[in-house]
Amino acid sequence: MDRSPLAPDAFPELPPIAGVRLAVARAGYKDWGRCDLTLALLDEGTTVAGVTTRSRCASPEVEWCRAALPKGKARALTVNAGNSNAFTGGRGHAAVEAQVARVTRRLGCQPHEVFTASTGVIGVPLPIDKAEAGVEAAFAAPPASWEDAAAAIGTTDTFPKAAVQRAVLGDHEVSLVGIIKGSGMIMPDMATMLGFIFTDAAVAPGLLQEMLSAANPRSFSCITVDTDTSTSDTVLVFATGKAGNPALTSWDDAGADAFYAALTALCTELAQLVVRDGEGASKFITIEVTGAVSDDSARRVAMSVANSPLVKTAIAGEDANWGRVVMAVGKAGEPAERDRLSIRFGETQVAREGLAAEGYDEAPVARHLKGQEINIGVDLGLGDGRATVWTCDLTHGYISINADYRS
Amino acid sequence: MDRSPLAPDAFPELPPIAGVRLAVARAGYKDWGRCDLTLALLDEGTTVAGVTTRSRCASPEVEWCRAALPKGKARALTVNAGNSNAFTGGRGHAAVEAQVARVTRRLGCQPHEVFTASTGVIGVPLPIDKAEAGVEAAFAAPPASWEDAAAAIGTTDTFPKAAVQRAVLGDHEVSLVGIIKGSGMIMPDMATMLGFIFTDAAVAPGLLQEMLSAANPRSFSCITVDTDTSTSDTVLVFATGKAGNPALTSWDDAGADAFYAALTALCTELAQLVVRDGEGASKFITIEVTGAVSDDSARRVAMSVANSPLVKTAIAGEDANWGRVVMAVGKAGEPAERDRLSIRFGETQVAREGLAAEGYDEAPVARHLKGQEINIGVDLGLGDGRATVWTCDLTHGYISINADYRS
Repeated sequence: MDRSPLAPDAFPELPPIAGVRLAVARAGYKDWGRCDLTLALLDEGTTVAGVTTRSRCASPEVEWCRAALPKGKARALTVNAGNSNAFTGGRGHAAVEAQVARVTRRLGCQPHEVFTASTGVIGVPLPIDKAEAGVEAAFAAPPASWEDAAAAIGTTDTFPKAAVQRAVLGDHEVSLVGIIKGSGMIMPDMATMLGFIFTDAAVAPGLLQEMLSAANPRSFSCITVDTDTSTSDTVLVFATGKAGNPALTSWDDAGADAFYAALTALCTELAQLVVRDGEGASKFITIEVTGAVSDDSARRVAMSVANSPLVKTAIAGEDANWGRVVMAVGKAGEPAERDRLSIRFGETQVAREGLAAEGYDEAPVARHLKGQEINIGVDLGLGDGRATVWTCDLTHGYISINADYRS
Repeated sequence: MDRSPLAPDAFPELPPIAGVRLAVARAGYKDWGRCDLTLALLDEGTTVAGVTTRSRCASPEVEWCRAALPKGKARALTVNAGNSNAFTGGRGHAAVEAQVARVTRRLGCQPHEVFTASTGVIGVPLPIDKAEAGVEAAFAAPPASWEDAAAAIGTTDTFPKAAVQRAVLGDHEVSLVGIIKGSGMIMPDMATMLGFIFTDAAVAPGLLQEMLSAANPRSFSCITVDTDTSTSDTVLVFATGKAGNPALTSWDDAGADAFYAALTALCTELAQLVVRDGEGASKFITIEVTGAVSDDSARRVAMSVANSPLVKTAIAGEDANWGRVVMAVGKAGEPAERDRLSIRFGETQVAREGLAAEGYDEAPVARHLKGQEINIGVDLGLGDGRATVWTCDLTHGYISINADYRS
């Protein structure tokens, strides 16, 4: 698969995070000559927080992480690529337990200190022998780089994705590094979004969870490629505490705001990288909704626009068909009044208060739509609610990836 | 546009409905050499019921029908094709009023006895001069056939769509004829679903509305092509009473059940014809959900499967990727338990109680997927709720229709 045209020019420069050691190995979950098992070892004292899919058919890995998260401690993370292990009943659970057991034996830690995630085809149990041998190989492997790990967690991703943020907490500068995978779904496997963030800051697990839970609806929950929610979506944050800052335990602590801002910025950057690798994507679309009755309502209207196949195909066709945005606002089921609705493409107001803007000139809109970064603004004229979501266009590439090949 | 491969072989044989006279004319809403204005004249005593889009950006025509429906009487229907008149502010309303005024003057009837619908591009006011002259031309035109009318209400439809049902009410056989248009949305215009049903039965307007409102969630609300809800969707039923049956006024009246059954069957047939003309469709897909906690819940799960681009592209690719059905069930947000979930493709059970069915053989599924009529069964194993919805696959044809041409 060619590298997405929306990919960044290069993999970013990333600092090491004290207390984190990475390794990758070839478990051979698929018949491919690449590393597909990632192991992150975390020093004692590392705290953890996470958010997982709301799918009713969540994978055993997701259930494992959910059960372990309340304890708030982490010593290791394993990530298997090429098989999601979802919808595999008791055999899937057994595979998770077997892989975790190998790690606890090596580290002398508790099972709830080991986190795990898998991504790939649904319905095929993760082969236990490969899962166990892969972990053993990773323990024996030399240290891996962020780029190695970002590549090893990917499936049909066309480029490895990572980002970094820094924050100053009193006298201490801390770093946050995140890696992420996902590009929608790809034939024949079901890809998923898996994101892992590592920081040397000291943050109590309760606060870390609150911060991730607050950052999530403003970042990961604001992206969509194709409306299809995976059975395995997982984002975990690990805080090793090695930066030496006095541990953050409350929002009122000095530095908490700075750390939260950095975490939110990092989550947003990682989420946008997934959209930039959206299946078949040729344009990155930002949809800003203002004037809604609430932020939640604004997000649902924005998502209705972002998920509309007619809006997405219009953008792909570089067509200034703003009537499709009207349609998508109308169907969202949220408070909206036709005669207060205004729409903007790029910097150009195309519709104002329920009808085409007076003297509307399509030329600047057509120029904007020829670019790779598209901005659509919707003002509902009702209140102060606002939201921004990110998506990509819908092209022949999406159909080719998902329909032209047999599994 | 080529005729859909899923179209019926021929237009059906349809009886006349006593009390209904049809005419078509060239209003010239677009630069096309075809009739685009349809007029149905209805004898005095005709009752009417209707259902309209729930879009918050409904067209002036939809608002007009909503205001007129409570009176329950109809003398005429006009349908304009090529311009939906939606999102056009006061000018759109003025166009509706002007066209209606021409009809009331001709018939000496009240404005609320005239119903109207328009379909086509959003955001361009319906030109009043063409709307008025078109109606006058229709009054002067010779009688038109059902096929003429079914063709004239279409926009990007690839075939005219109609169906008939009969019911025996005591000593009287009554007929119901319906015509419908819609195939999703097509570049550069936004198509809509408009359906019109005519019967010679005598039915009080209150009961007629109750029956249509009950039939709608089992028919029109059970189809989806692309998740995008139009600003103009409208279905109207006109009952002329010319069959001579004692008017049905309550569900307990003799014949009410038979009439309701015929109405529901007709609505279902018309709805399925729209799916058979879905943009780019190559396969007609029936999704049956059983074992849900309620019928509503079953319908939402079925719609989640029917709207999943990954399920639809898998069917297009004739790929037995049942994991995508698991994913779509999981994301529906309805009660579902992975370990009770069973899935069927055609007659073959592919997954049972949360994992791949024992001894699952893909060969019969692959054969089923090569056909044009695809059946997917989902059993949730929780209760007695059930629903059936109909959709089509997602192909390169959809992208070509909606992205490859500029408006």
